Amino acid sequence: MSLARRLADAIGADQVVTDPEIMRGYAHDEAEWAPYGRPAAVVRPRETSEVAAVVALCASEGVPLVGRGAGTGLSGAANAVDGWVVVSFERMDRVLAVDPVQQSAVVQPGVVNDRLRERVARDGLWYPPDPASAPWSTIGGNVATNAGGLCCVKYGVTRDYVLGMEAVVGTGQVVRLGRSTAKGVTGYDLAGLMVGSEGTLGLVTEVTLRMRPLRTGVEHTVVGYFDSLTDAGRAVAAVAASGVVPSALELIDRFCLQAVDEWKNMGLSAEGEVLLLARSDQPGAAGEQEADTILGCFESQGSVYAVRSTDAEEAEALFAARRLAYPALERLGPLLTEDVCVPKARVPHMLERIEEAARRFDTHIGNIAHAGDGNLHPLFIVPAGDEQAKKRAKEAFEVIVDEALALGGTVTGEHGVGLLKMRGAAREMGPEVVAMHRAVKGALDPAGIFNPGKVFATA
Amino acid sequence: MSLARRLADAIGADQVVTDPEIMRGYAHDEAEWAPYGRPAAVVRPRETSEVAAVVALCASEGVPLVGRGAGTGLSGAANAVDGWVVVSFERMDRVLAVDPVQQSAVVQPGVVNDRLRERVARDGLWYPPDPASAPWSTIGGNVATNAGGLCCVKYGVTRDYVLGMEAVVGTGQVVRLGRSTAKGVTGYDLAGLMVGSEGTLGLVTEVTLRMRPLRTGVEHTVVGYFDSLTDAGRAVAAVAASGVVPSALELIDRFCLQAVDEWKNMGLSAEGEVLLLARSDQPGAAGEQEADTILGCFESQGSVYAVRSTDAEEAEALFAARRLAYPALERLGPLLTEDVCVPKARVPHMLERIEEAARRFDTHIGNIAHAGDGNLHPLFIVPAGDEQAKKRAKEAFEVIVDEALALGGTVTGEHGVGLLKMRGAAREMGPEVVAMHRAVKGALDPAGIFNPGKVFATA
Repeated sequence: MSLARRLADAIGADQVVTDPEIMRGYAHDEAEWAPYGRPAAVVRPRETSEVAAVVALCASEGVPLVGRGAGTGLSGAANAVDGWVVVSFERMDRVLAVDPVQQSAVVQPGVVNDRLRERVARDGLWYPPDPASAPWSTIGGNVATNAGGLCCVKYGVTRDYVLGMEAVVGTGQVVRLGRSTAKGVTGYDLAGLMVGSEGTLGLVTEVTLRMRPLRTGVEHTVVGYFDSLTDAGRAVAAVAASGVVPSALELIDRFCLQAVDEWKNMGLSAEGEVLLLARSDQPGAAGEQEADTILGCFESQGSVYAVRSTDAEEAEALFAARRLAYPALERLGPLLTEDVCVPKARVPHMLERIEEAARRFDTHIGNIAHAGDGNLHPLFIVPAGDEQAKKRAKEAFEVIVDEALALGGTVTGEHGVGLLKMRGAAREMGPEVVAMHRAVKGALDPAGIFNPGKVFATA
Repeated sequence: MSLARRLADAIGADQVVTDPEIMRGYAHDEAEWAPYGRPAAVVRPRETSEVAAVVALCASEGVPLVGRGAGTGLSGAANAVDGWVVVSFERMDRVLAVDPVQQSAVVQPGVVNDRLRERVARDGLWYPPDPASAPWSTIGGNVATNAGGLCCVKYGVTRDYVLGMEAVVGTGQVVRLGRSTAKGVTGYDLAGLMVGSEGTLGLVTEVTLRMRPLRTGVEHTVVGYFDSLTDAGRAVAAVAASGVVPSALELIDRFCLQAVDEWKNMGLSAEGEVLLLARSDQPGAAGEQEADTILGCFESQGSVYAVRSTDAEEAEALFAARRLAYPALERLGPLLTEDVCVPKARVPHMLERIEEAARRFDTHIGNIAHAGDGNLHPLFIVPAGDEQAKKRAKEAFEVIVDEALALGGTVTGEHGVGLLKMRGAAREMGPEVVAMHRAVKGALDPAGIFNPGKVFATA
């Protein structure tokens, strides 16, 4: 009996997809340059017991499986290999509980990030992690990749909001990891270990998330245009040195801004080559002061135009443009995305090296960045079908990874290692730490069925 | 050749202590009710290579070792067993680097928490985690236990501040885990896994810590006295429900307050049975508003006396009393300390059950609490030598653990499992999760030398 048939027997035929046309849409994420294969089946469970049944079957057959949220990942972590089972959480998309006193929520993994944010706002709560994919990406995917976003410069990443979870682990058992309380130190932080493990240690079937009180005050926006990436980078370092922690500090270059504008007709104007967008959400006069400090940092580092935005609509449009940059550029051709993160003082140096790489490899690099974190997203845009250009872009990609490591940085600030960053990740971790990864995976996934071969080489 | 002699050969005789009198002071932490034995030797390394040499020797001999900061732990995690090696980090006590732009610091594990806070303040930075032991406890111990404190209700615990570390792991190798950057998702969060692992996975030899900007504004203090623990508990739940996140929300009962006063002659007056101490550090009018909201919560829940403190000195004295409560009570007899944490809405119920347990087991329970987190520290005070009273206290201790679990809480909010909370921790985690712990420990500590038999039973 085929695997698909056994899956259908286990969890019901309507939860199992084998149509090759439909499966194609489940076989990969948005890391278009990463390889992927043809899954044996796609399952769409409705509840945890069905996930457990699928894991048990795969474990007994030795068939690997890969979990999948919305497929908005950018490193290939959700990509299938020939013969694997894809577990899509699209039907497990409920917010199970919201607790305004504890400031927490319990959700299924398929809940879309923005939908959760809307839901908890009704109870006066706020879920900060806001990847640019928030309108589509799911909490399960966010947990698997430890997603970041615009808010993290002040409010942290997904990991900072995961209190506990239910997961199906390598024994096929359903376990509860972590806690529901504000604090707790019972045993190892296995819930934290699952966050960012890119589906290699188990499948998360429910998440308990910490929330913050809904922000109700005014945010002060500061807009600064610069003539060069390095000027903008120096302004970022100056903000960090000022001691101000902005609630967002984003970078977007003219190329990316225009790509959004052409797509959405937002009437955005670029007053320089590079735009920095900063915000303070401190209440009252403290917020005014922070905004003034940021403005001063922009001006002292040679902004060609910098201003405290008084037009809330325009400010929102600029942040929307930042969030839409990735899909806007995807329209122009296959994209390869970097995600290096460097110490804040090194942002200007890293931006310089990105420009050098673009020149040296004759490749076009657009730039967006969570600049305040030192998390940069150079984007390689290549004409469709130009294999030479693609080869040059790949070389530049690896050079940028190595430069980030040389500056004390990391290969991936928030997108994850997946398939695209495995070489750099191995360099970053070193053989001893990779060996620790293998030991942990071997211990928790003895059958080796959870997304093997991603993040680190299994042997 | 004796183990001590081989240790002396490996790292120098002046780094090795074998005098039984001196060793006695290194054999246990402050969990006076937990068992401990006579170590074979105490080593006091000066650098990482010496730690690695000790681990290598212990691994080859199969001799367990236990790391030790200042020995202020309250669960017995630092307790030695007969024949073990104690590794004291007292000589590795340097702050190696402070980076005001990145807002981070690199420290050796033996740095005392308060000394670090003083040092980074000179660079305009603040290290929030502030266990009541901060004047004595070390960062290494704080990391091993994932220490909390008064600030965590708003600013999180040690784990939220650990970016990366150097550690000697089970292979005897020195590895770097985590990162130096603001964000980073390369591989598993092994640095996070080490935090709170109570020395069972390796020895941390250097820590990179995230800092916050130094707070410079005024803190608004609200003081509220209540006639009963449950009234105070209801006020805590009301603050949580109000949406305000205070920068501290502490509880101390009259018994504990008087113990401090008698010890330190602070002239504290108790206007009721239970004192709640709250603070807001929001800037400007927002802070005033928060303080008013908290005051309203106190009053609405029947405070007998509540006031926005205008006397900064008195406010500071009350917080100092909260921090000194533990040592003040230790003067009165052997102490057994609980550390349960429950959902915030359940604080009044948990306090009620603590009172019931005190009555039922005829045992005196003092109460201090990081009330805003739901993290309660009932303290059992027993006349020295009264074995019957000790037995009753132990029974009450276990009943309180079970009641906390029944309320959706955890056995330990911040003190760690060590030896004292192993039964409750096993209940909380369940056999499947304990099995995951054993698998992880087996993978990372194959020789089984790092503090075995703590936190969970190894077989």
